[in-house]
Amino acid sequence: MPMKPIALDAMGGDHAPRATVAGALLAAKEGIPVLLVGPILRLQEELRAQGGDLPIQDAREFITMQDHATDVRKKRGASINVCMELLKGGDASAVVAMGHTGATLASALFNLGRIAGVDRPTLLIEMPSERGRVYLTDGGANVDCKPEWLVQFAVMATAYAEAQGVQAPTVGLLSIGEEEGKGNALTLEAFPRLKATPGLRFHGNVEGRDIFKGTTDIVVTDGYTGNVVLKLSEGEARTLMKWIREALTQDLLSKLGGLLVRRALQGLRAKMDPAEYGAMPLLGVEGPVFIGHGSADSRAVLNALRKGQGAVEAGLMGRVRAGIAALAVDK
Amino acid sequence: MPMKPIALDAMGGDHAPRATVAGALLAAKEGIPVLLVGPILRLQEELRAQGGDLPIQDAREFITMQDHATDVRKKRGASINVCMELLKGGDASAVVAMGHTGATLASALFNLGRIAGVDRPTLLIEMPSERGRVYLTDGGANVDCKPEWLVQFAVMATAYAEAQGVQAPTVGLLSIGEEEGKGNALTLEAFPRLKATPGLRFHGNVEGRDIFKGTTDIVVTDGYTGNVVLKLSEGEARTLMKWIREALTQDLLSKLGGLLVRRALQGLRAKMDPAEYGAMPLLGVEGPVFIGHGSADSRAVLNALRKGQGAVEAGLMGRVRAGIAALAVDK
Repeated sequence: MPMKPIALDAMGGDHAPRATVAGALLAAKEGIPVLLVGPILRLQEELRAQGGDLPIQDAREFITMQDHATDVRKKRGASINVCMELLKGGDASAVVAMGHTGATLASALFNLGRIAGVDRPTLLIEMPSERGRVYLTDGGANVDCKPEWLVQFAVMATAYAEAQGVQAPTVGLLSIGEEEGKGNALTLEAFPRLKATPGLRFHGNVEGRDIFKGTTDIVVTDGYTGNVVLKLSEGEARTLMKWIREALTQDLLSKLGGLLVRRALQGLRAKMDPAEYGAMPLLGVEGPVFIGHGSADSRAVLNALRKGQGAVEAGLMGRVRAGIAALAVDK
Repeated sequence: MPMKPIALDAMGGDHAPRATVAGALLAAKEGIPVLLVGPILRLQEELRAQGGDLPIQDAREFITMQDHATDVRKKRGASINVCMELLKGGDASAVVAMGHTGATLASALFNLGRIAGVDRPTLLIEMPSERGRVYLTDGGANVDCKPEWLVQFAVMATAYAEAQGVQAPTVGLLSIGEEEGKGNALTLEAFPRLKATPGLRFHGNVEGRDIFKGTTDIVVTDGYTGNVVLKLSEGEARTLMKWIREALTQDLLSKLGGLLVRRALQGLRAKMDPAEYGAMPLLGVEGPVFIGHGSADSRAVLNALRKGQGAVEAGLMGRVRAGIAALAVDK
């Protein structure tokens, strides 16, 4: 049976619907089935302008970046809500939305609900590391966390990493020292729980320096710290690349050298580019939901749709449910 | 009246006493008065080997990296304790110690005590930013914080920044969004208190990306997050520099270009090198105490001693006491 289409909120992100439609057309060329969700006339016009054709599900309203997350309850007909309804009704296999994390999270909770046994859904962030990729949970969905939530995040992140093809993913608890006794009130309570969870490859504490080093495949922390880590790492990469550009134009010799190394450094820039990762999964809700950067261009939209398809094909939901169910049995 | 010498724990850090003695000799050449504190015979031998001469205060014991912070109470004669006693007795103007942050903090609290009105001392971290420098407090001395401590940290960091010559330093509260309503339980409580503190130039919330951008001169957060920020930023810089080296040797063209840009990139590496910052002040104890990286080389020790001298000359203690006293009056 062919895969149901991925419902793409065509009105999400700073460059919608241009970037979303362009990304969807690229994805369709690769054989990824996409259903555009948004105001039909506007999307038809955009498709005509880009010379492409895709199925559209009409949605009159949409959430803007100025709207609050809670506005998804008022704007029932908003494109993000229609996406979730399609997923819930079995007419879509996944939802992909660019930008407005809060509204997408609220819409997913409202329309899909949580997986039984999950206290809080988590945003999983993918970051570059010396060993390839590192998954950070929670990426900002839950600022203040309880220790048992961190255990659930770790279990769901493990299921996701496995679905992504990571062999026997390891989990580190972000703290301020490697020893078990180092940490804050939350991590000190979470440590023994993580250690006692069967099926979890718990490495112990990791520090800030271990994230880029890739000491573990997964790093678990509260959403406040996760958000700070995400934005600091993006900001630092941007500043360093800026300083490199400045260094490579500071005199004639550097300029000449800079021309010669330009291509080599472009590879590095791509590695640090959030668009490469496409979107982060929202784990713990009843359906595969992916949230991309609000500043997404067509390539980021394409990568987000690829990620959605890959997760569906790898049986993400079954894996997450099984992980959480096993947790309940052990209690 | 000439400045009393800076007491340097000559046994602190991974490369002691070689690096500490070498750094002290460099400082002495610049006219910074240094008193070496440690086992006299061993330090005399090291001075002979390096062909230099400096005053020594004998201390039979010392704290190793294997010791616990609390061991400063058992090893009363440890060099770090002797340093603090010299400072307390007025025979030293400041203490500089490389490495073992916990033991130095414990020794300072035990021997010097806190400034009246200070609940918890804080470690202030100096980091590079697009606007020059950014000061981060708390750097890891207090993992779980109360809102009023963050206010004290901000006040002491302001005093320190002013002593360092920063004009009208601004303060940002590290959070997950710019709006006042964004944050975790701690920052939501700290925000109105920071806003209501006279003499504090409170900018509001800043995000992880604002640290390297240099949006504010000072960023205040709890010690858990501060430690994660410090170690993540150092780790990311190391990984990026490694990737740049790899990119610049990947083919013949890049290698040639790499040779031409080598000098330009060295300046960047220096900017990211923790040794450049020398040491971080421990603010809130009764005397100027600076703690450097455990991996300190002679240059880092020199920079730490420079920092100590600069702070003493700028009247750091008076500024910090005045800031904290003003806080008490407003209550």
